[in-house]
Amino acid sequence: MRLRLTPRDTTFFDLLGSLARHLVTGASLLAELLGADAEGREKLAGRLRDEEHLADEIAHEIMRRLNQTFVTPFDRDDIYALTSALDDCMDSMEEAADLIVLYKVEELPRRVSDQVQVLHRCAELTADAMPRLRTMGKLVDYWVEVNRLENEADKLHRKLIAHLFDDIADPILLIKLKEIVDVLEDAADHFEKVANMVETIALKES
Amino acid sequence: MRLRLTPRDTTFFDLLGSLARHLVTGASLLAELLGADAEGREKLAGRLRDEEHLADEIAHEIMRRLNQTFVTPFDRDDIYALTSALDDCMDSMEEAADLIVLYKVEELPRRVSDQVQVLHRCAELTADAMPRLRTMGKLVDYWVEVNRLENEADKLHRKLIAHLFDDIADPILLIKLKEIVDVLEDAADHFEKVANMVETIALKES
Amino acid sequence: MRLRLTPRDTTFFDLLGSLARHLVTGASLLAELLGADAEGREKLAGRLRDEEHLADEIAHEIMRRLNQTFVTPFDRDDIYALTSALDDCMDSMEEAADLIVLYKVEELPRRVSDQVQVLHRCAELTADAMPRLRTMGKLVDYWVEVNRLENEADKLHRKLIAHLFDDIADPILLIKLKEIVDVLEDAADHFEKVANMVETIALKES
Repeated sequence: MRLRLTPRDTTFFDLLGSLARHLVTGASLLAELLGADAEGREKLAGRLRDEEHLADEIAHEIMRRLNQTFVTPFDRDDIYALTSALDDCMDSMEEAADLIVLYKVEELPRRVSDQVQVLHRCAELTADAMPRLRTMGKLVDYWVEVNRLENEADKLHRKLIAHLFDDIADPILLIKLKEIVDVLEDAADHFEKVANMVETIALKES
Repeated sequence: MRLRLTPRDTTFFDLLGSLARHLVTGASLLAELLGADAEGREKLAGRLRDEEHLADEIAHEIMRRLNQTFVTPFDRDDIYALTSALDDCMDSMEEAADLIVLYKVEELPRRVSDQVQVLHRCAELTADAMPRLRTMGKLVDYWVEVNRLENEADKLHRKLIAHLFDDIADPILLIKLKEIVDVLEDAADHFEKVANMVETIALKES
Repeated sequence: MRLRLTPRDTTFFDLLGSLARHLVTGASLLAELLGADAEGREKLAGRLRDEEHLADEIAHEIMRRLNQTFVTPFDRDDIYALTSALDDCMDSMEEAADLIVLYKVEELPRRVSDQVQVLHRCAELTADAMPRLRTMGKLVDYWVEVNRLENEADKLHRKLIAHLFDDIADPILLIKLKEIVDVLEDAADHFEKVANMVETIALKES
């Protein structure tokens, strides 16, 4: 094993790993934001924006190295696609936080916390999986579990939408809540996309 | 002709063909669903979901073979993109069915059936075209006709949107109908994308 | 310099340049449309649609040549992605014009003009940058400035959304205006994507 830790390998896996760790922090901040008051929410959305910038810089660094490296640990296009899918996860979470603040939504339906908890779990699994790309070890459990979680997120999302249309009489509030809930569902979709890419990469390398 | 039917060719064309046949079934179920009552709609949306799963499995199988095959009948990336575009057609149709049930929309504007009929025609043309990729024969008619149909779908969609904003006073009903009508338009766009990809592939191979 | 102007180079750069010039015209028409009356708007949206068709034909021509040329000035996939990103800029601008006419929105918030002005500036910078791809000269200023403009567009968009939700009591008008303002923000995102692609290409070639 140690022998494979040549510089060429380390870089990309390390960078993908740090990028994914920012997703975990992002999901935690988002969870915290849901329970905060208006002032707290603004502060936490700001911190999530900072995380997003850091993630963005790492993504940028991956792209830069990708363009200057002849030998990559696996297919160049796959690293590119994986990086940009991880980036999409972050963007959706930041967008959700942003909308909550921008729309001044005081009370969110209870199930929104469940959505965010699923995202947090997805982020953790993703961050744990990235370093395992180096040896392609124990990745099956990861993508199976993320697919299961996305299914759960999907059911939550459907229930939330049904609840919104059944119980929210104010159309303007409905528009706001629907967009927030939809963007959180997008985030879950992006995590699934990351998992599917990892599956594809693992299949190619096997 | 027969001589070209080596195993390497058969697989991908056959799989793309079956994937597209599920689109035809999907569009039929969607058309049937429009005319059904609440109970019937739920059942038909369930069957459309099953079709979507079957299509998904075929797409998965294509990806799996793609990653394990050295020689592909045409550019690997093109097969990948074509498969995922066919998948998008199915997803949009299933999403539309899903929304109709979830939103409990009793009456849909008449032109929604016209939208679905255009999708059904696109699906049939697509399913007929997939096997012809083997010999790249008579594909021009297919993509020209799908482009024409997408244009028709676009005009229908515009008329539907104008009608919704002119005639629906209840904003919540408007939100629901607009999303359904928009998702059906997305499906037409995806069929056009498939046709454009086939055109690109045919140009490369010519 | 002159020596590099072989036919193989000229074509793609010229075509990308003309494609981008249509974006400038498109943005001008969109700006004009905002200030026009209903009849004028319909006419200008028609002209924007014509521009979009012309741009589309150029994009098509680029794709056609891409598939028939063995040696391309830079990575085939990058030319493909750049072309389709330029196309997306046009599509969003045309869609915005289209929605304004279709939704019969008489008065638009003042900041919508600011959004369009930012798009116009992005289009100009993009059109100026395309020919410089030939020598990869002075491109840094271009992508830094477009990124700055996209940031400005983003802030404008957020302010517009907050204004809409604070000040528009009619939910149906809100739905219309929100979609227009969102589509204009999409256009700014697409211009940023073009700039980021140019950056990637320049990094690869450097």
